[in-house]
Amino acid sequence: MGEFDLIQQYFADRALLGMSGKDFSRIPLGIGDDCALINAEPHNSLAISTDMFIEGRHFFAGTDAYDIGYKSLAVNLSDLAAMGAKPTAFTLALALPKVDESFLQGFSDGLFTLANQFNCRLVGGDTTRGPLNICITVFGDVPAALALRRNGAKPGDDLWVSGELGAPAFAVRERYANRPLTADTDGQKKLLRPTPRIELGLALRSLAHSALDLSDGLQGDLRHICKLSAVAVEVDCSLLPVASSLQHLPELEQWQLAVGGGDDYELAFTAVPSNRAAIQQLSIELGVSLTRIGRVVEGDDLRFFDRQAQPVCPKIVAQWCSFDHFN
Amino acid sequence: MGEFDLIQQYFADRALLGMSGKDFSRIPLGIGDDCALINAEPHNSLAISTDMFIEGRHFFAGTDAYDIGYKSLAVNLSDLAAMGAKPTAFTLALALPKVDESFLQGFSDGLFTLANQFNCRLVGGDTTRGPLNICITVFGDVPAALALRRNGAKPGDDLWVSGELGAPAFAVRERYANRPLTADTDGQKKLLRPTPRIELGLALRSLAHSALDLSDGLQGDLRHICKLSAVAVEVDCSLLPVASSLQHLPELEQWQLAVGGGDDYELAFTAVPSNRAAIQQLSIELGVSLTRIGRVVEGDDLRFFDRQAQPVCPKIVAQWCSFDHFN
Repeated sequence: MGEFDLIQQYFADRALLGMSGKDFSRIPLGIGDDCALINAEPHNSLAISTDMFIEGRHFFAGTDAYDIGYKSLAVNLSDLAAMGAKPTAFTLALALPKVDESFLQGFSDGLFTLANQFNCRLVGGDTTRGPLNICITVFGDVPAALALRRNGAKPGDDLWVSGELGAPAFAVRERYANRPLTADTDGQKKLLRPTPRIELGLALRSLAHSALDLSDGLQGDLRHICKLSAVAVEVDCSLLPVASSLQHLPELEQWQLAVGGGDDYELAFTAVPSNRAAIQQLSIELGVSLTRIGRVVEGDDLRFFDRQAQPVCPKIVAQWCSFDHFN
Repeated sequence: MGEFDLIQQYFADRALLGMSGKDFSRIPLGIGDDCALINAEPHNSLAISTDMFIEGRHFFAGTDAYDIGYKSLAVNLSDLAAMGAKPTAFTLALALPKVDESFLQGFSDGLFTLANQFNCRLVGGDTTRGPLNICITVFGDVPAALALRRNGAKPGDDLWVSGELGAPAFAVRERYANRPLTADTDGQKKLLRPTPRIELGLALRSLAHSALDLSDGLQGDLRHICKLSAVAVEVDCSLLPVASSLQHLPELEQWQLAVGGGDDYELAFTAVPSNRAAIQQLSIELGVSLTRIGRVVEGDDLRFFDRQAQPVCPKIVAQWCSFDHFN
């Protein structure tokens, strides 16, 4: 199978399947030319994010092809969610060691399951031979003035987080230790198929001052808000929504997984206290837990507090390190 | 050096250097958040293209970092040129085996030299550890109705090509054969630093019926026009603008390099004969040779003719195979 047959069968032909009846007047040109063409929505900016997804780095060798396809798009959609943007389209650049039709079938199944769910159309890409690497660039719509940026947190804001934290990090840790995940299939599932919080991001446009998605771990990610908003952030560890499957672990270990682990793909956001009732109502409407875990104050650093409202020892916090691809 | 220092030093800080005085009201948000934000120009679509650039596949191991940075953006800009789009911005996803500051310095020097030349701003990206892989996605502006598509060729059109052909393919062939390129530094230079034909693409919006860029070789690329325009294309091999540095080779070998080689990054386009004078005038204005090499006729295939206007033997044409990443 050559490059162009591969593109046609697994990607071009499928890009429009499951999209029938949808309005794509916004996309004058999709796959098959030198470029795709996308029209912006009136009064909206195009939100753009790109992520590489590499075997041995972002997923374990031997991960099911369906899950690779699913997650490679999910992590990009999560960036749109964190911006309050509505998904429109994506491009896919794919390096494959060889043409493996079984892999391509599973990969495209996972990819298009999620793409169809969010009406996000594949509009172009590139395929080449090389070490397995998936690079997706996603496009979404958001009015620039309503985009959820990292620089909008204000002293006095509450700090919130969606969903539960720590289960994917636990699944990764157990996998590295060659321990079976009998007690936590939820964590394994969330590691492989995170749910991009698109609806939440859209609803937060009018409720939150700032937001980001938790990919590298709460600690490292919140530091971006501290830096770009020029504020300090305080986290009450006892309020962290640690995954229920981790409740058997010692408290400090739970916090380490929830604060230092990555791969949660939940949203952290800040909002004025007067929005508390609206946010709790939103949680009910979306069926997504939203937990207030701290606050924004004057300053420039990130601080963690224990159950007695005492600062967690800095030496312990230092062990809750977030993910850094080069450290 | 960690991931975020690396991004700051080699990419974020440099993304705005050389761009002073330029109007970036179109880009409400660049590097540093979950997404970048781009506004479309009024009455324009956003043209989007993505390409992966891999060591050992798209460039030889040991290629100078400057040239890798330069060409990784150049091949993407070439796709914008082929669409008649004006460059606006790009994202960069970069997998690196390790943090090599010497590589990063050279790579970013080459990348930003070209980016600044075309006012194309880096707005976001991703860095990760992994086998060297550069994935760039470029964005440009073009009114959808004026975009140079592959499906617009009409019987009766002339077939044109810009610049000279074959020198990069010759450089690659000699390199594989471990022969020194003493006689063709031009080919080596063009292989490493192709010039994206942006100004030409913009001017062709009003002159050409269809266009594409020559990345995989004239033969394979023209077949896209045949298929998508539902036409036949005839090429007079004696008219091919074979690179002057290849004139010492036997004629058939010259044609093979010009037709079957890749990496030319010239534009091929079709236009009505009544535009010949305007196209020749354009060639003079831009200082880029534009050569009429054939015509579009009724049918569905690609045909080559020799100096006696006889069809080139199909067995010979079959050897002028274009590049396919999986064959």
